[in-house]
Amino acid sequence: MGERLKHFVESQQLDEKLIYNLFRGADSFRQNPRSNLNLDGKTVAMLFYEPSTRTRFSFESAAMGLGAKIIGTEDAKKFSSTAKGESLEDTIMVVGGYCDGIVLRHDQNGAAARAAEISDVPIINAGDGKGQHPTQALLDAYTIYRELGSLNNIKLAFVGDLASGRTVRSLCYLMGKFSGIDITFVSPENLRIGQDIQDYLRRNGAQFREDANLERVLPQVDIVYMTRIQRERISAEEYDRAHGKYAIDENNFRLIRRDGRLMHPLPHLEEIDLPVELVKNDKRVAYIRQAHNGLFIRMALLAHMLG
Amino acid sequence: MGERLKHFVESQQLDEKLIYNLFRGADSFRQNPRSNLNLDGKTVAMLFYEPSTRTRFSFESAAMGLGAKIIGTEDAKKFSSTAKGESLEDTIMVVGGYCDGIVLRHDQNGAAARAAEISDVPIINAGDGKGQHPTQALLDAYTIYRELGSLNNIKLAFVGDLASGRTVRSLCYLMGKFSGIDITFVSPENLRIGQDIQDYLRRNGAQFREDANLERVLPQVDIVYMTRIQRERISAEEYDRAHGKYAIDENNFRLIRRDGRLMHPLPHLEEIDLPVELVKNDKRVAYIRQAHNGLFIRMALLAHMLG
Amino acid sequence: MGERLKHFVESQQLDEKLIYNLFRGADSFRQNPRSNLNLDGKTVAMLFYEPSTRTRFSFESAAMGLGAKIIGTEDAKKFSSTAKGESLEDTIMVVGGYCDGIVLRHDQNGAAARAAEISDVPIINAGDGKGQHPTQALLDAYTIYRELGSLNNIKLAFVGDLASGRTVRSLCYLMGKFSGIDITFVSPENLRIGQDIQDYLRRNGAQFREDANLERVLPQVDIVYMTRIQRERISAEEYDRAHGKYAIDENNFRLIRRDGRLMHPLPHLEEIDLPVELVKNDKRVAYIRQAHNGLFIRMALLAHMLG
Repeated sequence: MGERLKHFVESQQLDEKLIYNLFRGADSFRQNPRSNLNLDGKTVAMLFYEPSTRTRFSFESAAMGLGAKIIGTEDAKKFSSTAKGESLEDTIMVVGGYCDGIVLRHDQNGAAARAAEISDVPIINAGDGKGQHPTQALLDAYTIYRELGSLNNIKLAFVGDLASGRTVRSLCYLMGKFSGIDITFVSPENLRIGQDIQDYLRRNGAQFREDANLERVLPQVDIVYMTRIQRERISAEEYDRAHGKYAIDENNFRLIRRDGRLMHPLPHLEEIDLPVELVKNDKRVAYIRQAHNGLFIRMALLAHMLG
Repeated sequence: MGERLKHFVESQQLDEKLIYNLFRGADSFRQNPRSNLNLDGKTVAMLFYEPSTRTRFSFESAAMGLGAKIIGTEDAKKFSSTAKGESLEDTIMVVGGYCDGIVLRHDQNGAAARAAEISDVPIINAGDGKGQHPTQALLDAYTIYRELGSLNNIKLAFVGDLASGRTVRSLCYLMGKFSGIDITFVSPENLRIGQDIQDYLRRNGAQFREDANLERVLPQVDIVYMTRIQRERISAEEYDRAHGKYAIDENNFRLIRRDGRLMHPLPHLEEIDLPVELVKNDKRVAYIRQAHNGLFIRMALLAHMLG
Repeated sequence: MGERLKHFVESQQLDEKLIYNLFRGADSFRQNPRSNLNLDGKTVAMLFYEPSTRTRFSFESAAMGLGAKIIGTEDAKKFSSTAKGESLEDTIMVVGGYCDGIVLRHDQNGAAARAAEISDVPIINAGDGKGQHPTQALLDAYTIYRELGSLNNIKLAFVGDLASGRTVRSLCYLMGKFSGIDITFVSPENLRIGQDIQDYLRRNGAQFREDANLERVLPQVDIVYMTRIQRERISAEEYDRAHGKYAIDENNFRLIRRDGRLMHPLPHLEEIDLPVELVKNDKRVAYIRQAHNGLFIRMALLAHMLG
């Protein structure tokens, strides 16, 4: 697969060649989940300082599917030495001696980079505060590729909390590498996309704009990427100003193109309000398939980095 | 084993034939725990929204004993997307993509049925609020069968919290399928057995009555099934009225028949107050064996449903 | 390996022959971690009533490395039946039916002995309150042996909380078995080493003394064993009197002998304040290697007790 990633901290690290190699790997695991046990005898540590279901479950399922053993904690803040005041660096150095790789979810921006700097074993960033969530970006891109057949010439709308949403940040960094990308940002006034992302997209020649009118945007894009207003990352006042402003319900869902897709990194709250019947049967609802794609792309990533 | 259960939500789903098949399976796993690795390559998710030791441990040990991998959380309320407000339905749809079956413990009555309705992978109810706990009923019935040699013509006393105790509910539903069943309910005034159970037993031709005098009941029955007053499910006032009223201690334990058995779904508190010596040596104390039976019957159930 | 330990509750249980046998086992697992799968098909339960990273992770990694399956909880107080008021004895009897051995971390002194008294399966004490932490002592002794080449004629300084620090207690009990041991205790006035340890060392012919001057002690010893002032085990007032009094920083670190070693059971706080560069590169800093040694010595112990 070409040069191997030592650590995976931010989505910019991926080049086009590696991205497509990982997609091919994911496709192959999907067809034959037990085709590759090349982590047999290896141990992967899951260090989660923040709650998670799908990220942790899919990483664990992926690693075990490759034959690896799992150690870990689902609440590192409380159950580990961190509760006694240990630094992240010490924890990483120690845990690195018990495993062959560490999947790290942390509540502080930059934690994954700090861990990578000191770690002897590979670090995979599974979300660091308002920073990045690069494996989510990878599964998002994989979903777009599978649903639309390409990563070039895609029109996307990112909707919701664009200021502290690390999944949007990571996906912008990834999509910016492809040609013909056209992005519309739809967000409450107080949660607009950051200047760093705008600069990056401009440098990479991607088209982008902001538009406060969701209904106007919906019929114009291939991908509607909804996000949750993250109560845990902003003040109550900011939350009140932002939440409930943008949502997809049965009415405006019809505005999505016939061949368009509704994505969401999940979990979703009120920002998606659709009947279960529609979720299960309308092919435009892609977010459950999107979550499931995480399993296969993480198998491909783990096999690439630790195999 | 005849028709396969897709989901296991309530104990009424089991018919006599399947029950005895599962017992035979459990016996066989007891004799040779490694005889059957037919979940090799499969993954089972443990989604626990309420604390548990024996249920979770025995399910995990059972699934791993069959060769399966485990993903899961022991506190889904806090550590999963539920903490961010995700619906049970969404969680089930997503987690279903990472595994081949979900063992669900929830604090709301009916949660397992809701999950089963939407899930593509089998759901096993490991307790839903005041609803049911059908695998507990199965291991209870298996224990009665092993200890007394039959499930017919059994005299049982259910003692304690009969209103919110889901294990009693589930076991009544199961025992009601057999002939010659005779039940005495012994409970505080404010925690009496529900009308739905009484109706069910009547329809099934089982004898039953209420009796407030535990000492009178003890010598008359084959099985004394004690339960804990569940502080977490009733008000402090109701708890004060109910707890401490019925207990087995060294004195009234002697009233249990020589060939009778003391059962309890565990954990027990003050309602059983016996010296460890007696617990370990008097064969009438069956509740430790009862707990251990859970491992083998759950192996049989998992092999039946997911194998 | 000679007579097999049934339970491992306190470090005094180990005799010299067994200690060296375990060291040889650990060395062999270090060279070939997959050489021995003799726990294949076995299940080990991790019952942790207190937070832990390195102890739990290294035990799990060790057990899985030997082919065992793991069941367990990282917060037995909250997530298990203990939350409902179950006694430790009941929990042990029940969990023992689901596994082949129990690794127990508890917050009460003597909990491991209580568990061992009743348990049918082996109990391994992974720390019980202010009592002991014998596998830590074993990995500490293994570290001294590897770093200095012998366990005889060693000069040690124990620094910090010597009153409630169970690792120091356990290591004193272990080192007291060897000849030519010379110990200096350096502690805040209110956290001095217990009389029981002093009596034991005297009976075993070890030299020991107290000295309040850390800088005077540092150049005189082979091993500087720092410990954390454990806020969770003493009153706020006691903590204020004790913490910050003794620390190793870049200045006094230079006082450690060229062939001396700095050890710590970890996690450390302010009592060690060294730059990461030095931690990674100066061979006198032994505490990361010490932590990693835990994996191999625990493999050897598990193989001995459960294999």
